[in-house]
Amino acid sequence: MPRRALVTGASGFIGAQLVRRLVAEGWEAVAVARPGAASAERAQPAEVLFHLGAVGLHEAHPRPAHEVASTNVLATLHAIRTAAEGHVRRVVHVGSGLEYGPGSCLSEDAPLRPTSVYGASKAAAWLLASTMSRAAGLELVGLRPFTVYGPGDSPHGLVGSAALAGIRGTALELTEGRQKRDFVYVDDAVDALLVAASAPGVSGEAFNVCTGVETPVRTLVELLVEATGGKAQPRFGALPYRADELWSSSGDPAKARDRLGWTASTPLEEGLVRTVAAFEEARFDPVGLTR
Amino acid sequence: MPRRALVTGASGFIGAQLVRRLVAEGWEAVAVARPGAASAERAQPAEVLFHLGAVGLHEAHPRPAHEVASTNVLATLHAIRTAAEGHVRRVVHVGSGLEYGPGSCLSEDAPLRPTSVYGASKAAAWLLASTMSRAAGLELVGLRPFTVYGPGDSPHGLVGSAALAGIRGTALELTEGRQKRDFVYVDDAVDALLVAASAPGVSGEAFNVCTGVETPVRTLVELLVEATGGKAQPRFGALPYRADELWSSSGDPAKARDRLGWTASTPLEEGLVRTVAAFEEARFDPVGLTR
Repeated sequence: MPRRALVTGASGFIGAQLVRRLVAEGWEAVAVARPGAASAERAQPAEVLFHLGAVGLHEAHPRPAHEVASTNVLATLHAIRTAAEGHVRRVVHVGSGLEYGPGSCLSEDAPLRPTSVYGASKAAAWLLASTMSRAAGLELVGLRPFTVYGPGDSPHGLVGSAALAGIRGTALELTEGRQKRDFVYVDDAVDALLVAASAPGVSGEAFNVCTGVETPVRTLVELLVEATGGKAQPRFGALPYRADELWSSSGDPAKARDRLGWTASTPLEEGLVRTVAAFEEARFDPVGLTR
Repeated sequence: MPRRALVTGASGFIGAQLVRRLVAEGWEAVAVARPGAASAERAQPAEVLFHLGAVGLHEAHPRPAHEVASTNVLATLHAIRTAAEGHVRRVVHVGSGLEYGPGSCLSEDAPLRPTSVYGASKAAAWLLASTMSRAAGLELVGLRPFTVYGPGDSPHGLVGSAALAGIRGTALELTEGRQKRDFVYVDDAVDALLVAASAPGVSGEAFNVCTGVETPVRTLVELLVEATGGKAQPRFGALPYRADELWSSSGDPAKARDRLGWTASTPLEEGLVRTVAAFEEARFDPVGLTR
């Protein structure tokens, strides 16, 4: 009997890579839109529900704030309910480093002070999921990925749009790029998800999925230009900063290292080269199951 | 033209007292279940929406956790949407001191670490409401009442059940009562709501509605026994503490005093005497409009 996992958000960036990996490692991975809504998965309990389903980040078209808020919170309540009904042994809830709001080397004990609706929706979901799980005695592990990038990345995010501009040799209008982010390669993030699915003694805990290293956006783009062979033409300062710009966003990786035994191992330069290669070869498909 | 207010949760404890006061002060108070759902209130914009509608605290029958979570969050999203659609000038969002979780003299800067699903639902609602309002340029003021008590109090809460036991001379089974709370008289809380409706320069801010004084539950009950003429028979220690007992919950009243000019002015002894009198005379009706 293969190990069985339910996955929400399986068609998203991280979700697609997760499904690919699960299948490669012999799991039965079932993509679900609304856990607990369909009857099919009810019949077959799963070992873990990876809850990644969310809207609002790097969408082709911005979603209204109330949709981001309600969709992300309700999806999490569905996930917890699925566990409460006995359909999964553990929920791995994928939140976001944006739950904290701005800050450098933020530990999991840092207050949740999100400044974006997306970050607030993830923080809200975590507060609800963690109190509900504790009250009901359910297994829940929370992950807070920072800026995940890699093959399959959204063409609407920074890394994806910059990689595409580099490949096409088109101009790329950017801010001055002084805002700093903690970039995590997607394979490393997927590693963290898999570890969280089975690590003992961590129920109810949240873990950063981060490197602890802050990289200015400008540096990131310069590395990408290099990875594309210098074809991209970034125009730093062509765009103004956002009024609510998040100047710093990075996490402390210590807790995940100590309690999960997980560390992000892919150097940024290498991750970017692989990302560009994936975009160049156009060998990536969104669901990740055809390879 | 009277000033016009929409009120969610108008049949609840604080809501009923608020509506009574609004009417007494010449406002037109419109009780709404779901702001924005009906078309009637859309036609007539209101000055303020007092959002108190919530489930899960002092209910006759406990509500399922997922209902507490989804109802309280979605009700707040409705409130914000009502403001976003231009139907109200300002939303006064009534949260809870339970948003913080345990702690003494907690300031509004304290991290939100709720330990109950109810507290989490209010913290989640605040994170969403505040980020959505900021993004859309809406006026929002958050209030975090601690343990509000007074005439009209739920018979299922501590003060109400103890007052009733005192009046009836019945036994009252209690824990040892060492847990501490910050008791706020309902008229004072209503004062805070009214001040928050029109105070300038406070949009996006949250304010504790508290006294800053921690009173052990045992002391509270002893004061109530006194207020009922010694008729109640409390049996301290007859019940065990809850596994997730909140040992301390009190707020710092400084910010509300400095920025809103509001202070809780009713001494606990006086508030309890008035509460017992209201229960005794059975002169309180839940909606508060018939007097």
